[in-house]
Amino acid sequence: MARVLTGIQSSGRPHLGNILGAIVPAIELINQNKEEAFIFIADFHSLTSSKDGELRKQNTLAVAAAWLAFGLDIKKTTFYRQSHIPEVAELAWYLNCFTPFPMLANAHSFKDKASRLADVNAGLFTYPVLMAADILLYSADLVPVGKDQLQHLEMTRDIATTFNRIMEEEILTIPEARISEAVKIIPGTDGQKMSKSYNNYIDIFLPEKELKKNVNSIVTDSTPLEDPKDPDTCNVFKLYSLIADQKQTDALRANYLGGNYGYGHAKKEFMELILSKYSKEREAFNFFMNNPDEIEKRLAAGEVKAKSVAMNVLNRVRTKLGFR
Amino acid sequence: MARVLTGIQSSGRPHLGNILGAIVPAIELINQNKEEAFIFIADFHSLTSSKDGELRKQNTLAVAAAWLAFGLDIKKTTFYRQSHIPEVAELAWYLNCFTPFPMLANAHSFKDKASRLADVNAGLFTYPVLMAADILLYSADLVPVGKDQLQHLEMTRDIATTFNRIMEEEILTIPEARISEAVKIIPGTDGQKMSKSYNNYIDIFLPEKELKKNVNSIVTDSTPLEDPKDPDTCNVFKLYSLIADQKQTDALRANYLGGNYGYGHAKKEFMELILSKYSKEREAFNFFMNNPDEIEKRLAAGEVKAKSVAMNVLNRVRTKLGFR
Repeated sequence: MARVLTGIQSSGRPHLGNILGAIVPAIELINQNKEEAFIFIADFHSLTSSKDGELRKQNTLAVAAAWLAFGLDIKKTTFYRQSHIPEVAELAWYLNCFTPFPMLANAHSFKDKASRLADVNAGLFTYPVLMAADILLYSADLVPVGKDQLQHLEMTRDIATTFNRIMEEEILTIPEARISEAVKIIPGTDGQKMSKSYNNYIDIFLPEKELKKNVNSIVTDSTPLEDPKDPDTCNVFKLYSLIADQKQTDALRANYLGGNYGYGHAKKEFMELILSKYSKEREAFNFFMNNPDEIEKRLAAGEVKAKSVAMNVLNRVRTKLGFR
Repeated sequence: MARVLTGIQSSGRPHLGNILGAIVPAIELINQNKEEAFIFIADFHSLTSSKDGELRKQNTLAVAAAWLAFGLDIKKTTFYRQSHIPEVAELAWYLNCFTPFPMLANAHSFKDKASRLADVNAGLFTYPVLMAADILLYSADLVPVGKDQLQHLEMTRDIATTFNRIMEEEILTIPEARISEAVKIIPGTDGQKMSKSYNNYIDIFLPEKELKKNVNSIVTDSTPLEDPKDPDTCNVFKLYSLIADQKQTDALRANYLGGNYGYGHAKKEFMELILSKYSKEREAFNFFMNNPDEIEKRLAAGEVKAKSVAMNVLNRVRTKLGFR
């Protein structure tokens, strides 16, 4: 069975875009039992951008809680924190010595970040090597990547190929990229792609009062209440229809077209749909956030599995390099 | 008691230059009991230049055997292999994220190596960060450095200072450099500084037959046997006087000045002095090389001590960064 490995950012609480675009489809795939899934929270990577330890800890818990709340089956998945198999940093050092400096210096994403960010640190520069270690430490066969990450996966393949060639043995598994199909773009409250960086996201796990404020922040136009409205240009309608079934969507469309139905009504409808559709997940999320030990217990189980796979690969590498 | 930390290369078998320039003076200092000594074999670093695992393993053993043969007191020293506390690579990842990219790009030694070497890899580039981790993981107070390494120590201080400032806590100890006094230059068989890279070294641990060949390779001029010779321009005399006592040196000088004394005689004298002066060390070296378990046992004891110091620092860093 092919091993599929996915790293997930821990730069914030998962929002509706993450849930519909990543968490739900991944869990559906896992439940089909066709592949062996490794899913990890990439908290080591988050250090390249954020130095706030307390925030990182909270975000890591929230990411884990969201996956668990949406029903990630930890029996079918190896679910772990990158930081809890810190041996990945050891492999990254070895791989650094097999990575041509110019390969990193010429990477698109580094050039882009170096030109945009104030804090251009060495972690940002060697990030693709740590990513290679993340993949190679677990002998992953398949790595789902967006087009923007394809170059990093190519680097991983190059580094692993160089390593195997110099070592004269197929020690590292050369992974294949699985280019994500045109992923459904989830619009944010302002119609742009929903993203933490644009601050236009819907956080379905918020307490009711804050959720209401969050939903009310969806940008609408100034069509008067009495007038018919165009559902297809409205952000509220777009968001609603992403989580509603066909009947609910048709009903809202009729209300829009009929007039005497305001955006305030639509927002209320959306809010209520979130509360009813995700009541189980909201409850589970809160349970986990209030009981971090329950998250810890589940991650710890995954980390035992991950560690054993990792040590198997790492020990072969150590021996081959003359360190053991 | 101040903690002094010294890393030693494992790029080859220790030669007379290493012994007289580093091993013997370090052991003398340790035996004075004025400082707490950490001495490690920097085998992770050697991966930036050599990919030969079997050779690395042999060199690491030979370096350890030489220190032990010259009487390193492992009760007074924490003696360990860098690779056996691999957590240093984890700390290096954290420190990477606190190291400005330009600081590494502008380092003298990287610029120098990048212009000379064929294999310019990312390990060579981030080497100063691993060196910083080597020092900071053990809260070293003092690091003996040659002038060429002073910039690296300055980087370590900068990285640690930045880390403490951002973390708002004095977690990492800021080390001081101990600039080596004008170290005695040990000449090689050709009169240049003795060095593995010049292939002009005397390996006092060689079996007799090979040692004889090694000593015979010392370059001399073509003064006829009968003529008086100038001891002060002769490589054999220089090497001899480095390990001889005053009486022996005076006697050889008289022979040089008296004539009818050839370089062959002087080489034989030098060879015999090596065999007699270092008979105990040669025997001990051979014992260790033939009983690698005895080396392993001694390193393992040091590695238990080193690990406990390292984990203490690392766990504070992990917690502060939100990974635990």
